[in-house]
Amino acid sequence: MIEKSSTDFNGISQDMIQLITDLYPICRSITGNGIRETLNIIGKIIPIEIFEVPTGTKVFDWTIPKEWNIRDAYIKNSKGEKIVDFQKNNLHVLNYSIPVEKKVTREELTRHLYTIPEKPRWIPYRTTYYDENWGFCMAHEQYQSLNEEMYEVFIDSSLEEGSLTFGEMLIKGESEKEFLLSCHICHPSLCNDNLSGIALSSYLAEHISHLSLRYSYRFLFIPGTIGSICWLSLNKEHCSNIKYGLIVNCVGDAGKFIYKRSRQADAEIDRAVVHVLENCEYDHEIIDFFPYGYDERQFCSPGFNLPVGCLSRSTHGRYPEYHTSADNFSIVKPSFLSESFSVYLDVIDIIENNQTYVRTDPFCEPQLGTRGLYDKIGARSSSQKDQLAMLWVLNLADGNHSLLNMSERSGIDFSTLREISDILVEHHLLEKC
Amino acid sequence: MIEKSSTDFNGISQDMIQLITDLYPICRSITGNGIRETLNIIGKIIPIEIFEVPTGTKVFDWTIPKEWNIRDAYIKNSKGEKIVDFQKNNLHVLNYSIPVEKKVTREELTRHLYTIPEKPRWIPYRTTYYDENWGFCMAHEQYQSLNEEMYEVFIDSSLEEGSLTFGEMLIKGESEKEFLLSCHICHPSLCNDNLSGIALSSYLAEHISHLSLRYSYRFLFIPGTIGSICWLSLNKEHCSNIKYGLIVNCVGDAGKFIYKRSRQADAEIDRAVVHVLENCEYDHEIIDFFPYGYDERQFCSPGFNLPVGCLSRSTHGRYPEYHTSADNFSIVKPSFLSESFSVYLDVIDIIENNQTYVRTDPFCEPQLGTRGLYDKIGARSSSQKDQLAMLWVLNLADGNHSLLNMSERSGIDFSTLREISDILVEHHLLEKC
Amino acid sequence: MIEKSSTDFNGISQDMIQLITDLYPICRSITGNGIRETLNIIGKIIPIEIFEVPTGTKVFDWTIPKEWNIRDAYIKNSKGEKIVDFQKNNLHVLNYSIPVEKKVTREELTRHLYTIPEKPRWIPYRTTYYDENWGFCMAHEQYQSLNEEMYEVFIDSSLEEGSLTFGEMLIKGESEKEFLLSCHICHPSLCNDNLSGIALSSYLAEHISHLSLRYSYRFLFIPGTIGSICWLSLNKEHCSNIKYGLIVNCVGDAGKFIYKRSRQADAEIDRAVVHVLENCEYDHEIIDFFPYGYDERQFCSPGFNLPVGCLSRSTHGRYPEYHTSADNFSIVKPSFLSESFSVYLDVIDIIENNQTYVRTDPFCEPQLGTRGLYDKIGARSSSQKDQLAMLWVLNLADGNHSLLNMSERSGIDFSTLREISDILVEHHLLEKC
Repeated sequence: MIEKSSTDFNGISQDMIQLITDLYPICRSITGNGIRETLNIIGKIIPIEIFEVPTGTKVFDWTIPKEWNIRDAYIKNSKGEKIVDFQKNNLHVLNYSIPVEKKVTREELTRHLYTIPEKPRWIPYRTTYYDENWGFCMAHEQYQSLNEEMYEVFIDSSLEEGSLTFGEMLIKGESEKEFLLSCHICHPSLCNDNLSGIALSSYLAEHISHLSLRYSYRFLFIPGTIGSICWLSLNKEHCSNIKYGLIVNCVGDAGKFIYKRSRQADAEIDRAVVHVLENCEYDHEIIDFFPYGYDERQFCSPGFNLPVGCLSRSTHGRYPEYHTSADNFSIVKPSFLSESFSVYLDVIDIIENNQTYVRTDPFCEPQLGTRGLYDKIGARSSSQKDQLAMLWVLNLADGNHSLLNMSERSGIDFSTLREISDILVEHHLLEKC
Repeated sequence: MIEKSSTDFNGISQDMIQLITDLYPICRSITGNGIRETLNIIGKIIPIEIFEVPTGTKVFDWTIPKEWNIRDAYIKNSKGEKIVDFQKNNLHVLNYSIPVEKKVTREELTRHLYTIPEKPRWIPYRTTYYDENWGFCMAHEQYQSLNEEMYEVFIDSSLEEGSLTFGEMLIKGESEKEFLLSCHICHPSLCNDNLSGIALSSYLAEHISHLSLRYSYRFLFIPGTIGSICWLSLNKEHCSNIKYGLIVNCVGDAGKFIYKRSRQADAEIDRAVVHVLENCEYDHEIIDFFPYGYDERQFCSPGFNLPVGCLSRSTHGRYPEYHTSADNFSIVKPSFLSESFSVYLDVIDIIENNQTYVRTDPFCEPQLGTRGLYDKIGARSSSQKDQLAMLWVLNLADGNHSLLNMSERSGIDFSTLREISDILVEHHLLEKC
Repeated sequence: MIEKSSTDFNGISQDMIQLITDLYPICRSITGNGIRETLNIIGKIIPIEIFEVPTGTKVFDWTIPKEWNIRDAYIKNSKGEKIVDFQKNNLHVLNYSIPVEKKVTREELTRHLYTIPEKPRWIPYRTTYYDENWGFCMAHEQYQSLNEEMYEVFIDSSLEEGSLTFGEMLIKGESEKEFLLSCHICHPSLCNDNLSGIALSSYLAEHISHLSLRYSYRFLFIPGTIGSICWLSLNKEHCSNIKYGLIVNCVGDAGKFIYKRSRQADAEIDRAVVHVLENCEYDHEIIDFFPYGYDERQFCSPGFNLPVGCLSRSTHGRYPEYHTSADNFSIVKPSFLSESFSVYLDVIDIIENNQTYVRTDPFCEPQLGTRGLYDKIGARSSSQKDQLAMLWVLNLADGNHSLLNMSERSGIDFSTLREISDILVEHHLLEKC
């Protein structure tokens, strides 16, 4: 049984913020030392296994790209002043830029600059993974003030044979059937879009690793798209074990909870998350699957069609700070992380406890009074709601209704039904299927 | 074909009121002579078979309890006046009270008294079947006026080895498949909650016993809960014959009709009752099954899951007079009983006539004009509605649509479709499946 | 691929009006030379095969009636003036009238006259196919002015052994599976109710006969009811090839589009028409099947239950001019015919192209960038909508989703999905199932 205490979560949410703070300065990409450094820091919280997949490896239709690393980058004006400096914000460099060191005219420079005219003070986050190019991202305000003829551009990066790095942690439960939780780790200094997901995944793994679990839990820390394709390619045969899955990301901001259903649309994980959101105190929205967004695109591709949904707060492209320098500590807060943590734990709680029961003797109602289950139920004094919950469980325990089914049909919350079922099992009136 | 005439129903509703009047004074419980006396009176209307099941018999998880009988009970004040007298109203005694004869302080007496503070003039109906105890029920007004120090309490009852008694009548139809109608007979002087059901069941059985029937009809007159458990225990193997079922109770008051679906939710009996209510002139409400209320709890337990719904007016706990002395002749009226009788008969009419047909030649429409079915249909002049009904029947008579299915799809009432079908059978255009 | 150009349709709609103009004067009925003359004119547009089925032939429950022909008919007043003249409007004669030549009193005449009191200037269209009788139809205004004692009535008709005539054109496609389009040709001078259907069918057949088609298309030009029964009787074994069907009629007026679903309700033809109407610019209404109206009654009879719906504008009995002399060129216009033609062509376009695809490699997304499918898709520059459409197709191409299914799930229009699919097939990412 998953026990929760809001005190714990306060502690955990502070830990999550600290982890985000530690990871924020690192320049991550889909390959390279930024990922390794990130996984090392996560490895201090939970024992993750780290995998390296060499450049050139075929993964389905894709190929592991060259490894990218960067040490420094800047634009200098004619006075030799760094007007744009990678050391100050790693978003300034177009991610996956090839090395460059030259003087360029303003006109040439402009063709390599990225800004957001509508948000003139924010630096955009842009990448050029599969198109060898170089560039800088800057605030549009600064861009408009560029008035010199010549600039010096310098990017000390490398794009070479190497490998793609990812991390994985498996928590073994009673069953080999797995609950997969996957977050992407390829974004640089962005707080909500990927650091919040990394933090929640890490501490959720840490938290449940101390519990006695029915299912196994696999946490993936992978670069987006190429990382999930790579993992699926390496673990194709294993996927039949994945019974539940969630993509974890954008869980630290103030936005309402958004659940994007799996492609299957009404898998047990979908029904569990919908149940949690419909019974929680937070604003939320349920949206149908569509083949765009995060790594659910790969897990839900037709050859796999895994029951993997996406449980976030503000999500992919749906908040103004998305993929800009404004996705920082001004929008990610401990209290929001704590709420998200709690919702994820509630989902796990349902999955862990969504048993199907049969009555030991299914004919008529049992005599509750002789068992001390009429006026009181076990240790608790029996409310009318508890009595009705008990009658519902006894009525629907026919091997065809999980507790989630019972909750959906009776309108009684999952946790009450679960507690009642436990008591009825103790009294030998029910058995797990 | 079930023929109805409102004249008959006026007579029947007077008969029902007379039966309720005859049964009202008897002190019934789940066992004892009150039930025997009741069944004897019913036996003057219809030939019921009476069963006695000995105390101590195991019936599934339950055991037939000791038999309870009562002859007298009262509370006397210091002047020797009977201030509470079982002879005046049998609700005064806590049903299943053990014998007692002693002087008690007001304080002790109070621990054995039951009242309804919100309804100070009404006597509540309370029981203590499975907890040996004694007590009295009284109006709260009277309770508040108790001002003496000592009272004399006397209950001349017995709780001894004996038996549980129930009655049963089977009306054989062409088929061994059965329609079960069950009412409980364990309540003492309460008019709507159980006497109205007994009266309707008795006269419905009497009425249809004169008809030529497709199905067999089994009427049960049983004590609530333990009675249905007992019957199911004795008839477990037989239950596969039960194709339809209704719990009959609370059918004499002014409330709207309430149909509580069977656990199966959409069985033929459910669809038939819904059809009758949606096509009748009376206010009504359809509610989903829940495992509380009357004996549908047992018939719909997972080991049986029989298609048994509950067709009532005001029902279980949903009218203020429920389980009080106010459930008397002030709320049960002939006209309400008559309406209920009519609705039950309409349901039976649908079940009896819900045939499935096939066209003798299913290709294209037959030529109606040459059979005299175009301008007129049989003896009746053909309205546009009749013509359309005929075309619907001819179109849907493919062996997959019962008349009830046809009615649901076409929006044409069941009785029109039935009459049309009969005519088409006469003209050899249709055959029963 | 069905190519459309509004210029073509302008030409076609003028052609359709011309055909209606040519056919308008002919007195058609369910048999006789009017039908033969009509089919000859249609035969100048498309190569139809003409069938003659002899009087007395049994067709299921029906018998081919005697053939009716008419040459002249009038009513003369005492001055010898023709006050009603078949030569001026063939609606004046009760269709299938037996010959008559006599003087009659006004009283006797009146028993043979048909008018529409609510529309005093319109001549009704009435028939007496299966009841040997004679009669005249006239404007109610004229009827009210009849003030002479005696009239001379003359109908030069014949009702004799002969045959029922119908026409048929089969356009062979790759598959033997057929799309059936049927119009009735039995109505005399009525523009919308049947001439518009004849015109649209003829030019639709002509138009698609030049195309390379996946399915075969069978166009029927048959008298209503007896004609479809006759055709079904002669082609009973063939019907298993009919995979789609539409009844074509009332397609020339200003009314909104009405689609009456097939008896199957949700067949592919139903879903295709609903998709076209929901994605077109015209007002429309979808109605459920009912066994009244046009020849869908026969095609959807239980022995056949073919997926045949009825796609019209104002339909059967739902416009005031229906079956009167006012159903003329004042309500049927080229622009309405053109719209109808376009809608029919869109339906055919969907049926022709509603392929089901599988991914050649269903695991994860393919790498679109390396194939030039990321920034642009084939020749067109790639909009965000196109990109999403491509991802949807790649995600749902699992062999279980036709393009129509994909469109229904994604909300993306059929034609975009079709174009995208073609491109993905070219790039060997998809295959047709």
